[in-house]
Amino acid sequence: ISVDLSRMDAILRVSPEDLDVTVQAGVRRKQLNEYLRDTGLFFPVDPGADATLGGMCATRASGTTTVRYGAMRENVLALTVVLADGRVIRTGTRARKSAAGYDLTRLFVGSEGTLGIITEVTLRLHGRPEATAFAVCAFDSLKGAVDTAIGTIQMGIPIARVELLDDVMVAAVNRYSKLELPEKNTLFLEFHGSIQGVAEQAATVQELALHNGGNDFRWSDREEERSRLWQARHDAAYACKALRPGCENWATDVCVPLSRLTEVITFIRAEADQSFLPAPILGHVGDGNFHMALVVDRSRPEEIAEAERLNRLLVTKALELGGTCTGEHGIGLGKMEFLELEHGAGIELMRTIKQALDPHNIMNPGKLLGPLTPL
Amino acid sequence: ISVDLSRMDAILRVSPEDLDVTVQAGVRRKQLNEYLRDTGLFFPVDPGADATLGGMCATRASGTTTVRYGAMRENVLALTVVLADGRVIRTGTRARKSAAGYDLTRLFVGSEGTLGIITEVTLRLHGRPEATAFAVCAFDSLKGAVDTAIGTIQMGIPIARVELLDDVMVAAVNRYSKLELPEKNTLFLEFHGSIQGVAEQAATVQELALHNGGNDFRWSDREEERSRLWQARHDAAYACKALRPGCENWATDVCVPLSRLTEVITFIRAEADQSFLPAPILGHVGDGNFHMALVVDRSRPEEIAEAERLNRLLVTKALELGGTCTGEHGIGLGKMEFLELEHGAGIELMRTIKQALDPHNIMNPGKLLGPLTPL
Repeated sequence: ISVDLSRMDAILRVSPEDLDVTVQAGVRRKQLNEYLRDTGLFFPVDPGADATLGGMCATRASGTTTVRYGAMRENVLALTVVLADGRVIRTGTRARKSAAGYDLTRLFVGSEGTLGIITEVTLRLHGRPEATAFAVCAFDSLKGAVDTAIGTIQMGIPIARVELLDDVMVAAVNRYSKLELPEKNTLFLEFHGSIQGVAEQAATVQELALHNGGNDFRWSDREEERSRLWQARHDAAYACKALRPGCENWATDVCVPLSRLTEVITFIRAEADQSFLPAPILGHVGDGNFHMALVVDRSRPEEIAEAERLNRLLVTKALELGGTCTGEHGIGLGKMEFLELEHGAGIELMRTIKQALDPHNIMNPGKLLGPLTPL
Repeated sequence: ISVDLSRMDAILRVSPEDLDVTVQAGVRRKQLNEYLRDTGLFFPVDPGADATLGGMCATRASGTTTVRYGAMRENVLALTVVLADGRVIRTGTRARKSAAGYDLTRLFVGSEGTLGIITEVTLRLHGRPEATAFAVCAFDSLKGAVDTAIGTIQMGIPIARVELLDDVMVAAVNRYSKLELPEKNTLFLEFHGSIQGVAEQAATVQELALHNGGNDFRWSDREEERSRLWQARHDAAYACKALRPGCENWATDVCVPLSRLTEVITFIRAEADQSFLPAPILGHVGDGNFHMALVVDRSRPEEIAEAERLNRLLVTKALELGGTCTGEHGIGLGKMEFLELEHGAGIELMRTIKQALDPHNIMNPGKLLGPLTPL
C-alpha cells in the first residue's frame, strides 16, 4: 500500500511576526515561497527539486543554502505525525527552543517514513536579505576551488551558498543549459546580508579565491542572469543524464569534515578519470558534502558494477576520514550496507526504536533498516 | 546508585580546521574555552553556570548566546553513549550534516540521563568574532524593553546576546554585585561580527530601542567593565537568593513564540506584583525564553504553594499561546505534570521509547517520565 499526501497542500497558518509557518505535508517549497512573497520572509532549505515539505522532513533534506541557514533538522519546529497504531501526535510547540522531554521532532525528521507518517509541519522562516550578491569564479585546479570554499567557512564568513561544479560538470551544464562558462573547476557563490555586509564578505572571499588560483571572478548584478545560472545549477542532474541519452544518474552523497574534503574529492576525481563512466562532480562544499553523478545504462550489469565499485571506494574513504555515507539523500534501499558500516551497534538501537514504534512493520517496510521480523 | 563523571575531564581531540572538538563528558565549558584560547575558536553555548558538557547535552542546555549560535541541539555533532544493557554506541560522525538513519544524537540530547549515559561529546566550534560591542540600555517600560528584543530578531539582526533584566532584577543585581545601574527594565546587548558589521547592527538596534523608550543607551568599550556586567548577569541567581537569606530560588522557564513574549511577561509581572514573594525576572528574550526567580522559604508550605500557583498560571498561559513549559532547564521531577499537558499523546511515545531502550528502568528512574513499570 502506498500513501500519497500530495493533495494535502494547504498552507495552514503564517505568523510573520514569529517567523514561522504551519503547512500540510504535501505543500511544495516553491509554493510556500510564492505564498510568502509579500511577507518579506522565505523558507531557505533548497534541495534543488521542488520537493514537498513533508518529504523534505522525512528525508532530512538540505541543499545549497544549508551552509548559511541549516538543514531541515534545524528548521523544523514541530510535526504532526500519524503513528503505526493510528494515534496522532504533535511533536513540539512553536517555541524556538525547548527542553521538554525527548526530541520527538528530530526523531521523525530523517526517519524516511519508517516510524510514522508526517502530515503537518511547522517551519522556521527567515527574513529576505536586504542585499544579495552573486559571483561565479573559475579556478586553475580542483584543489584551489575546494580550498576556497573551506577557507571561507573556516574564516567564519556567513556565505549563503558556495557550490562547486567541477570541469566535467561545467561542460555538461554548458551543453544542457546553453551557457558559455569557461570549462574549469568553478564555484557559484552567493552572499546575503546588509549592503555593506555583503560587500565586505564578497571582498574577503574574492581575495581568498585569488590566492587559490581563482583569477576569473565574475560578479552578476542582474537578477535575470543570476536566476539563469542557479536554474542551470539546479538542472545539473538533467545535464548529466543528457550526456548519455537513455541513461540514469547514480549519485553519490558523502559528507566529510571540512579539512578532508579536498583529499576526498581529488581522490575520487582521479579514480573516476580512469573509469569508462562519465562522472561529473558538484557539491555543497561549504558543508563538506558533494555528489558525483555516475551516468549509467542500467540495462548493462558491468556499468552498475562499475558505479557500485566507485561508490564503495568513495564511501569507504569518507567513513575512514570521519564522514558519513549520505549527507542529504538518505538511506532508502541503496545505502543500507553503508548505514551498518557507519553506525555499528547504533543500527541495533535504530531497530529497537523501529520495533517499539511500529511492531507490525507496516511503515515503509524494508527501507532504511532492511527486512525486520514483525514482533 | 549515582554515577559521577566529573573526573572524565579530558579534552580528547581538537580540529581547528574542522571547527570541532571531542571531549569527555565531565569537561566543563570554561575549561574547554580556556583550552581553545590559542586556536581563535570558542564553544558558544553559555548557560551561565560552569556546567559539564555531558550535563549540558543531557539537559539540552542553552543560554545567553543561543539567539546567535544555537543551543546544544544545534552544536552537538556526535555522542558516545553507554546504553542500559552495557553496549557502547557512537551516535554520529564528524560530518556537519548527515541523512544516515535515525537522529540518535538528538534523541539523547535532552533525555536527562533516562536513556543512557553520555560519556563523550563531539561539539561544533565557532570562530571568535573579529569585533565585539556591548551595551546596556534602560527602558521606560517592560514592554519597551521586550519589544526591542523582539524587533531585533524580526529584523534579522544577528545579535549575539540580548538579555532582559526587569527593574526588580536590576535592583537585586545592583545590591549583590555592587553596581549602580538605573533600576529600570534593562537590556544587556552584545554584538559579534566584523568591525563594520558590529557598528551597523548596533546602530540599528539603538534606533529601535530609542523608538521603544530606551533613552539610556550606554556603550562599553572596556573589556573589564563588560566582564563585570556579564559576571553580574551570570550571578543573578545568587543576587535573587540574597534578597532573602536562607531562601531558595524557584525558577520558572517558559519559552513562547516571539510575538507573544511581551504579553506573557507583562501578564506574569502584574500577577507577581500582587504576590508576597519577591519575583525578579530575567530572560533570553531573543529566543522568547525568560525566568522568574520566585524566592521562597522552602520550610513554609504557603510559600511553596504560592510559587506553584504563579508557575502554574505562567505555564498555562505559555502553553495556550503555543509555547513550552521549559525552554532550557528540563523536566526532572518538578515539571512532569506540565510535560503531560504540553505533549498529550506524545508522552506515551516517549514512554514507549524509554521502555524499549531501558526495559528494567535503571537509567535515572523516576525522572522526566515519572514512575514506570519495568517490563
